[in-house]
Amino acid sequence: MKIAVIGYSGNVNETPVKQLEEICEELGHKIAIKKHILINGGTDGIMELVSRSARNAGGEVIGIVAGLESGNKHLSFEFKTGMDSSMRSVLMMYNVDAIISVGGKAGTGLELFSAYLMGIPIVLLRGTGGWTDRIAGVLIEGKYLDERKLVEIKNSWNVDDAIELAENSKRR
Amino acid sequence: MKIAVIGYSGNVNETPVKQLEEICEELGHKIAIKKHILINGGTDGIMELVSRSARNAGGEVIGIVAGLESGNKHLSFEFKTGMDSSMRSVLMMYNVDAIISVGGKAGTGLELFSAYLMGIPIVLLRGTGGWTDRIAGVLIEGKYLDERKLVEIKNSWNVDDAIELAENSKRR
Amino acid sequence: MKIAVIGYSGNVNETPVKQLEEICEELGHKIAIKKHILINGGTDGIMELVSRSARNAGGEVIGIVAGLESGNKHLSFEFKTGMDSSMRSVLMMYNVDAIISVGGKAGTGLELFSAYLMGIPIVLLRGTGGWTDRIAGVLIEGKYLDERKLVEIKNSWNVDDAIELAENSKRR
Amino acid sequence: MKIAVIGYSGNVNETPVKQLEEICEELGHKIAIKKHILINGGTDGIMELVSRSARNAGGEVIGIVAGLESGNKHLSFEFKTGMDSSMRSVLMMYNVDAIISVGGKAGTGLELFSAYLMGIPIVLLRGTGGWTDRIAGVLIEGKYLDERKLVEIKNSWNVDDAIELAENSKRR
Repeated sequence: MKIAVIGYSGNVNETPVKQLEEICEELGHKIAIKKHILINGGTDGIMELVSRSARNAGGEVIGIVAGLESGNKHLSFEFKTGMDSSMRSVLMMYNVDAIISVGGKAGTGLELFSAYLMGIPIVLLRGTGGWTDRIAGVLIEGKYLDERKLVEIKNSWNVDDAIELAENSKRR
Repeated sequence: MKIAVIGYSGNVNETPVKQLEEICEELGHKIAIKKHILINGGTDGIMELVSRSARNAGGEVIGIVAGLESGNKHLSFEFKTGMDSSMRSVLMMYNVDAIISVGGKAGTGLELFSAYLMGIPIVLLRGTGGWTDRIAGVLIEGKYLDERKLVEIKNSWNVDDAIELAENSKRR
Repeated sequence: MKIAVIGYSGNVNETPVKQLEEICEELGHKIAIKKHILINGGTDGIMELVSRSARNAGGEVIGIVAGLESGNKHLSFEFKTGMDSSMRSVLMMYNVDAIISVGGKAGTGLELFSAYLMGIPIVLLRGTGGWTDRIAGVLIEGKYLDERKLVEIKNSWNVDDAIELAENSKRR
Repeated sequence: MKIAVIGYSGNVNETPVKQLEEICEELGHKIAIKKHILINGGTDGIMELVSRSARNAGGEVIGIVAGLESGNKHLSFEFKTGMDSSMRSVLMMYNVDAIISVGGKAGTGLELFSAYLMGIPIVLLRGTGGWTDRIAGVLIEGKYLDERKLVEIKNSWNVDDAIELAENSKRR
């Protein structure tokens, strides 16, 4: 499966990314050893941490980067989009089977809506803050981003559950 | 100014669009007589109602449509993007000075995040339901989509205030 | 009709644009007085000259500009694409009924292929140099860019003929 | 290096692709054993033949496909763009170090212009027909697509020379 991990960008040595390092290590490692392809935006923050551990575990990591700059050094393949971050995020969704969300600022919020609109299953890794936790509080019936119920958004409270929910989800 | 009105798509004779007809009529009319250019996605729902009244008042209406199909008949110029709705919404934001949000499903949610990320002022026309009201409940300090405070999101409770807030806002 | 004029970019006071000023003046003027909408890339060179004369004649001019910068001052509406010039050119073709080509460097060459692939009729204003004349020498059966014969490319030797051929052409 | 091979689409068992099978086999094989990453549009024709032989030789093949459909079965990674063929071709160029061109219809023509405009070195595998040979006849000084001389277009007459020229070329 192609599993995207979305979440906070930013310096990996600073709050709030720093606090999520252990979770990201575990997430990247387990995605890799289960032979899933990790997809992400290819730059810093959560993306960097998860990419690094996935690569260290021998996994494949595809970075779909905004603009024409290079992504981080933990990518097995980097795809430059020449687009701004938001448009790149939409493009990324064409290439993903499921999403795991970890914390996240407004860019992550946009990605949650973008994935939902394309019917891509979303797993929230709860307790990681940002829009991952914030969106959980305003879902319709605790599961949907609107009345059309395009695809289910699921809650997980640890990495194993997050990956299992992603694996068992079905793209619409 | 180029003011985008975003909100519910769908049949104009059915819930929830039908209930917002009067508000949309007033909104389109007043945007037009104040000589603003109305920008929207160019299809049905809120977009159709606002476009119709803006045109009836002699205003200019630009529809930025997804795909290659024609938009509704109330557009003074239609721009076909060949893209899916989400990517089209991001593209629309490059061409907007402020946004007024009326109700809205997940596509509207994506547009709110997309506008915020580009620093485009957002005015919520409260009481219209959907993501326009839902997002108001989860803003940081009641105004922002994340800690970066990229641009302020404002609440209005009637059409006059919405337009005035849009006019007085400043793109970042 | 929406008629795009493509051709040389560059300073309007320098070769080779300068030499085509009169032709561009006539072209913009006649497109405008025949109530066609002029579409172009919205920056300098041929685009600027044609836009200026179309606007002076009361015509509507839509500039579909690369990046997020403003286009020239002769546009009645400017659409920012945030994309590089090549991708912008492809996007422009979704919004055009026919094309008139005047001189042109490689960007114009790309636009000729892009239009052909979408089945948009192309009129070469011969004698204006660049790819407008160069492509004429390598057409298949003097009319097509490949064996599929997707749409006809026509030769004109003056502005009146160019506009008439564009008007009588049929998008595939 | 990331080397793109562009050229005829179409059924691999029919003219003109069929006649180029041996050349494509050699090209894909040699790109793979020299550890270059093969990039292409991921569908049929030249793309399919070159992908197949590169994969058989253990190479990596990235297909950058138009639309949302799957590409051919010889891709090690497939990137769906959701875009039409022309826009996809422009996007592909952001991810390429050099191009080898084999035959080709108008889509290949567009790719030649697109690569040139981005300063990507182009090697024509002469004698393969289509725009690969046709463009050679109208180059400025036998090397350039316009007076700006953005990047050199080189002629090769066999696969070994084509790959060597691509390897020794320098992206602008």
